[in-house]
Amino acid sequence: MDAYLAVVSKREVRSYADRPLPDELVRQILEAGRVTGSSQNRQPWRFVVVEDPARVADTVFVPENLRGAALCVALAMDAGKPSGFDAGRVAQNMMLAAWNEGVGSCPNGVADAERLHDLLGLPDSERVSIVLTFGYPARAVDPESRAAPEWIERADRRPFDEVVARA
Amino acid sequence: MDAYLAVVSKREVRSYADRPLPDELVRQILEAGRVTGSSQNRQPWRFVVVEDPARVADTVFVPENLRGAALCVALAMDAGKPSGFDAGRVAQNMMLAAWNEGVGSCPNGVADAERLHDLLGLPDSERVSIVLTFGYPARAVDPESRAAPEWIERADRRPFDEVVARA
Repeated sequence: MDAYLAVVSKREVRSYADRPLPDELVRQILEAGRVTGSSQNRQPWRFVVVEDPARVADTVFVPENLRGAALCVALAMDAGKPSGFDAGRVAQNMMLAAWNEGVGSCPNGVADAERLHDLLGLPDSERVSIVLTFGYPARAVDPESRAAPEWIERADRRPFDEVVARA
Repeated sequence: MDAYLAVVSKREVRSYADRPLPDELVRQILEAGRVTGSSQNRQPWRFVVVEDPARVADTVFVPENLRGAALCVALAMDAGKPSGFDAGRVAQNMMLAAWNEGVGSCPNGVADAERLHDLLGLPDSERVSIVLTFGYPARAVDPESRAAPEWIERADRRPFDEVVARA
């Protein structure tokens, strides 16, 4: 999928088909994260693949997203020098690598960070910034139509002239 | 460019050719930002195109990056509820939309946020999270070779088994 098409057609997908992801694609998603640029190349992250997402589901704001996910990755960030910016970059890259193969995804905000940290057995030096869920969309999504100018126009986003300024 | 290829071949480009970007591409880069997903769809951002980057160059850590840029976008984020995660997502999308057309980019950390804020005439409700610079690379970069497994292997990144864990 063309990268611009992937970027503009990506929407959060929270409802997943009961269909596993190929191992190779899981590897691609994680590689997309691994090679992501970061401030001073610190790579202040680890990607924790949660084998049984249901086990930690009630530590995020919307537990259903985790229960239905085909892949669940907790983004464990360096707690010493937290960088939300780096976390956002790496999450976006992983979600785009997935979407490139038709796999939807969604970032899940953490409601009980301490409990999630303990359930995943993380060291004190890390904290979970966000939990990413992935899966083939339960309802088919056509990237081309999502990227069409009319769709983008209708999308629930602030208008161009409100968001873009010159100085 | 395939989205996976774009993601894994993107490297920070800090040295730019003296060649303008087509208006249409600038628009695409900004659109890629505008449609980016954000927490609760708050879209807590504005993209401030800095017409004369040299004017604000000494407010970032590496002024040279701004002086040579063909396009310079200050990411003005909602100061009330700052989200580095949303900033990282939107920045990555804009940089990938650029790279998809062979345009390099780099996030520039802000050294003097207060002065930059004043120079850009921003309201108190916003603060600049990062300044993105864009331009055709001064030295040609071949995405395919950058995405080759050997190159990724050699890339200055932590190894897969150190970054990925299962829990």
